[in-house]
Amino acid sequence: MNTFGRKFRVSIFGESHGELIGAVIDGVPAGLELCEEDFQTDILRRKSGAKGTTPRIEADLPSIVSGIFEGHTTGAPLTIIFRNTNTHSSDYSLFSAMPRPGHADLTAALKWDDCQDPRGGGHFSGRLTLPIVAAGVVAKKMLSDLTILDETPCNDIHADIIELGGIPRPADTPDGEQPQAWRQAIDQVVKEGDSLGAIVECTVPDIDPGYGEPFWDSVESCLAHAVFAIPGVRGIEFGDGFKAAAMKGSEHNDPITESGRPSKNGAGGINGGITNGAPICFRVAFKPTSSIRKAQQTYNFEKGEMDSLEVPGRHDVCFALRAPVVVEAMTAIVLADLVSLR
Amino acid sequence: MNTFGRKFRVSIFGESHGELIGAVIDGVPAGLELCEEDFQTDILRRKSGAKGTTPRIEADLPSIVSGIFEGHTTGAPLTIIFRNTNTHSSDYSLFSAMPRPGHADLTAALKWDDCQDPRGGGHFSGRLTLPIVAAGVVAKKMLSDLTILDETPCNDIHADIIELGGIPRPADTPDGEQPQAWRQAIDQVVKEGDSLGAIVECTVPDIDPGYGEPFWDSVESCLAHAVFAIPGVRGIEFGDGFKAAAMKGSEHNDPITESGRPSKNGAGGINGGITNGAPICFRVAFKPTSSIRKAQQTYNFEKGEMDSLEVPGRHDVCFALRAPVVVEAMTAIVLADLVSLR
Amino acid sequence: MNTFGRKFRVSIFGESHGELIGAVIDGVPAGLELCEEDFQTDILRRKSGAKGTTPRIEADLPSIVSGIFEGHTTGAPLTIIFRNTNTHSSDYSLFSAMPRPGHADLTAALKWDDCQDPRGGGHFSGRLTLPIVAAGVVAKKMLSDLTILDETPCNDIHADIIELGGIPRPADTPDGEQPQAWRQAIDQVVKEGDSLGAIVECTVPDIDPGYGEPFWDSVESCLAHAVFAIPGVRGIEFGDGFKAAAMKGSEHNDPITESGRPSKNGAGGINGGITNGAPICFRVAFKPTSSIRKAQQTYNFEKGEMDSLEVPGRHDVCFALRAPVVVEAMTAIVLADLVSLR
Amino acid sequence: MNTFGRKFRVSIFGESHGELIGAVIDGVPAGLELCEEDFQTDILRRKSGAKGTTPRIEADLPSIVSGIFEGHTTGAPLTIIFRNTNTHSSDYSLFSAMPRPGHADLTAALKWDDCQDPRGGGHFSGRLTLPIVAAGVVAKKMLSDLTILDETPCNDIHADIIELGGIPRPADTPDGEQPQAWRQAIDQVVKEGDSLGAIVECTVPDIDPGYGEPFWDSVESCLAHAVFAIPGVRGIEFGDGFKAAAMKGSEHNDPITESGRPSKNGAGGINGGITNGAPICFRVAFKPTSSIRKAQQTYNFEKGEMDSLEVPGRHDVCFALRAPVVVEAMTAIVLADLVSLR
Repeated sequence: MNTFGRKFRVSIFGESHGELIGAVIDGVPAGLELCEEDFQTDILRRKSGAKGTTPRIEADLPSIVSGIFEGHTTGAPLTIIFRNTNTHSSDYSLFSAMPRPGHADLTAALKWDDCQDPRGGGHFSGRLTLPIVAAGVVAKKMLSDLTILDETPCNDIHADIIELGGIPRPADTPDGEQPQAWRQAIDQVVKEGDSLGAIVECTVPDIDPGYGEPFWDSVESCLAHAVFAIPGVRGIEFGDGFKAAAMKGSEHNDPITESGRPSKNGAGGINGGITNGAPICFRVAFKPTSSIRKAQQTYNFEKGEMDSLEVPGRHDVCFALRAPVVVEAMTAIVLADLVSLR
Repeated sequence: MNTFGRKFRVSIFGESHGELIGAVIDGVPAGLELCEEDFQTDILRRKSGAKGTTPRIEADLPSIVSGIFEGHTTGAPLTIIFRNTNTHSSDYSLFSAMPRPGHADLTAALKWDDCQDPRGGGHFSGRLTLPIVAAGVVAKKMLSDLTILDETPCNDIHADIIELGGIPRPADTPDGEQPQAWRQAIDQVVKEGDSLGAIVECTVPDIDPGYGEPFWDSVESCLAHAVFAIPGVRGIEFGDGFKAAAMKGSEHNDPITESGRPSKNGAGGINGGITNGAPICFRVAFKPTSSIRKAQQTYNFEKGEMDSLEVPGRHDVCFALRAPVVVEAMTAIVLADLVSLR
Repeated sequence: MNTFGRKFRVSIFGESHGELIGAVIDGVPAGLELCEEDFQTDILRRKSGAKGTTPRIEADLPSIVSGIFEGHTTGAPLTIIFRNTNTHSSDYSLFSAMPRPGHADLTAALKWDDCQDPRGGGHFSGRLTLPIVAAGVVAKKMLSDLTILDETPCNDIHADIIELGGIPRPADTPDGEQPQAWRQAIDQVVKEGDSLGAIVECTVPDIDPGYGEPFWDSVESCLAHAVFAIPGVRGIEFGDGFKAAAMKGSEHNDPITESGRPSKNGAGGINGGITNGAPICFRVAFKPTSSIRKAQQTYNFEKGEMDSLEVPGRHDVCFALRAPVVVEAMTAIVLADLVSLR
Repeated sequence: MNTFGRKFRVSIFGESHGELIGAVIDGVPAGLELCEEDFQTDILRRKSGAKGTTPRIEADLPSIVSGIFEGHTTGAPLTIIFRNTNTHSSDYSLFSAMPRPGHADLTAALKWDDCQDPRGGGHFSGRLTLPIVAAGVVAKKMLSDLTILDETPCNDIHADIIELGGIPRPADTPDGEQPQAWRQAIDQVVKEGDSLGAIVECTVPDIDPGYGEPFWDSVESCLAHAVFAIPGVRGIEFGDGFKAAAMKGSEHNDPITESGRPSKNGAGGINGGITNGAPICFRVAFKPTSSIRKAQQTYNFEKGEMDSLEVPGRHDVCFALRAPVVVEAMTAIVLADLVSLR
């Protein structure tokens, strides 16, 4: 199953070291203005370059190869591809013999009878989040475009890191800057050849009430489904989240006000699976990068013994630094589908 | 969207105070032995009666009205219904005027233009978890039945409460007993007219490797989707969960052993969205019961002013006490679908 | 797969001689007025009683057991059940030994490893078209209800028999009457213990242009999918149908007029998979009733030899006489889904 | 909705004059040997060149850009693209003013608010049957590959034209040759600037019994759904087809023999929606090519009056000559999905 959504539907395809990767998006309304420049900001946010990310930078230029005509969407399936420029694949045989802890090397082999593309993680590569970000750009445009829908159900989706390596973001750090404590933590694990995880918080401040379904397609169900499709996610929580389990009802319940909106947001903007008019708010736990220089134990299937693996190459020390825009994209994809189905 | 699954598919229907509630299950293989007694154990576990649950007890007798013949499934859609015996619906008008904090009273009205069935929460009622438990029983039987599949992909799914009201289960409490600290916490909130939440942990010890898909239909995505369909869930985490975000890669990564299985289980049994042979392990945060006797603030739309609401009737002080079997059912439903699609 | 549709979704369940049969309908908008009397006309049209149909008459009273409150739909899944009153099942063992030609006795046994419910055809029974007719009533109401949608996309769906036993309906036969030539043909086969087929034509005069999708979900694809779900259908054709294959382009093409509508209807109201504003028009070929009194050859698996079977009981001489309302229901279900998704 | 299938899933995208067209195929098992040469035979059969087809010949070279590694499928989504070489698009503006009878020019504009790509029919172009043929090649390989499935459920799918321009294929015409009567009919309409239709018959001789579902996903439903996705189809019939409506039950019913197979094939290989072990057999009516040189009436929306249109360019006189391999592809796609889901 390579597709998500029921009306606004996103399929992704490709491998880390294949010729190209891409997304096919169904259900984009006709007449949405769209050009390749629209993708720049979000693609740049996903790119490496910041402290804690890999120094290898790729072009990541999107080509819209179907579904567009004279600068607007046509209503037909929208296909966006990215040609892989960096497809040398020297040393993947290493990981067939010694599967990397934390990666899908072994599960892919078990699932697909050793037929998987092993080069750079193949289809399991985090590189596939690039077409997801592209689909998110389309979803965001659709959600905020007055000319397409009668309303603009959602103008703003914002995700950011709130904790890195166990260190909460200090309140006084200016927006868009890395707190000094994080930079120090990153410097430290770089030295150790180790890696860090992080927690991303995502907020949708202006979503209308009434989206989502009771039970199977609750807003939480749909968002969690999409968010766990991002490699490396370990948990998701809405509103008060896990803390709610230790609260009393009188603390956790959100009083309802004259506008129908709650006066606080313990529920994360959702009651009974349906948006209540408060901001959707959830947090996502990302594991530390699995590829580390530091020696790890794994089984060497060629030698037939446990062995020590130092994953070669240059990796993100904390790939979660690149994840907020991916979380936003998933959120936009889910909301675009819910809005389309209303 | 009232259905979950792609091949093993579960639909639910009904309202708290309607004539009956039920589930239609597609994709059950022909020849599975099944009778109404098979449901007793799990339905009993979901029932109230224990300390902290409502004293109101219903019969909850399942009737299999289609898809069965001479004691086995036929291959046709399996329908299980429960007749509602307790359908008096005196005072629901109260909650139309004064929506209950934490409930779907208002979101349902906004979504469905005030046409929803307001009696006892209508279709949003936790009572709809009863047909889900029934579908879970069918899924569990199918997963462990040697005569149907060539293998028994999963003989055991076990969920239990590991923390209640913020109090972890003491290690020395015998299985099946409520720890004394929890009983005291429950007694306390009963006095206060308040309520408690809890954390449920679910484990699937014997699942084979290779189930799940990269990205959209990762095992985590499917399980989270189904688990957030349970009313009152605020978060889910796999393996090390949110703690993973504060760990280093060298701590969180699971070394791979000769058997191909990991030597610890920080990933919760899943790599790259696919089971790795270790037990699937996840935790679910349940909010405290929303219906409390203690006075809460909500808007009185009839009076046109904020008002104080003491939710009448008898409620679970901690509905999460009845939730472990529902979490198990959702897990079984997800796995039955993944196994069917393999 | 027991469900049809993407947003307006119909699932059916039950067996000919089970306790009850029914339909669960998702995606019905909230606020649609609906009561059990609404079903009478169409259910009566499906009933036996006319010349050529079985004299056995059942009550066929619908019960709406979920999704309705105070006379209107709520937005939650709508469930309609019919209790089977006539469930004695004396002699089904006969057909396990001697599968009836034209029936699913043998294919069901092969598919479901002899576990199928054999009583009266079980889940394969034409009786399951009763919940389909009920779902069609809901779809028709939705399509023509101004208070629910902003428009009434379709007020009229009309199907009727245009040929029976190879005899076209004479132009001078009054509406609602059986032509004399058909009555004579029916009398003749009754004497012979044989049966007749018929062709049903269905027209949707007032459908708006723009419904349907290119390729996979063309209007023809969706209608044909649903129509072939009716037991006993052997063919479907749109507009000029099979005759188009013998026409020249200059004959078959429909000139386009000022209104954008075609001046004739060789295409059956659909171009490129999308409604063009002309009436949707298609014809459906129904086979003759398979159950006949006249002796037929089939294999007797008990005796291990070819044997002669005279199907006992009272059957429709021409079940297609009861089919037009089923074709209408399928058409309404398809259109309700297309309209919901627009 | 741009996707067909539930487990073996085919999505198509692209426009006649866009950069590229293609298909993404999900659910292809890992380990299937596949290379670009495998597509040659079927792509060649779809190509123009024979008498009655357009003299314009394109390269139609497939590129497999994802899902393959070292000559076999990997299990990940398989993407096949065709670069459009012939994308000059001079005079499409003509058809915006004067929509071509029989084409989707006007319905596409109505559906997509005049935003559709009008060049060469855009996404509605018959050129999109090229990726369908490619997906059919993959489906055929999968159906007949012993190393992937435990069985080879289907080694042969064969479609051919049985009637052209109303002239049945003479019994004495050698296989693979165009009957002389057809050549004469083609010569005649070429002179007239007109076009012809045809009837294609498709047979699956060796399909096992037990595929398909009662009701919604009957084999006929699934095949008809896919076949009507081919542009220009006006009808489909199985076995005795429309003739069955004029037969008696004793004539149409297929006697069952010792092997469980029927002794004749009036049902087209399907009972109760499920294959019965006889060959699947159905016929498809294709309309005459819509684009004709001969003058046709259509409305000129620029001039505001009825006008005469002679469609310029070189067209197939009978596009159905290229359709048999497309019908085979659709059949293979449907069967691959049914086999995958079993």
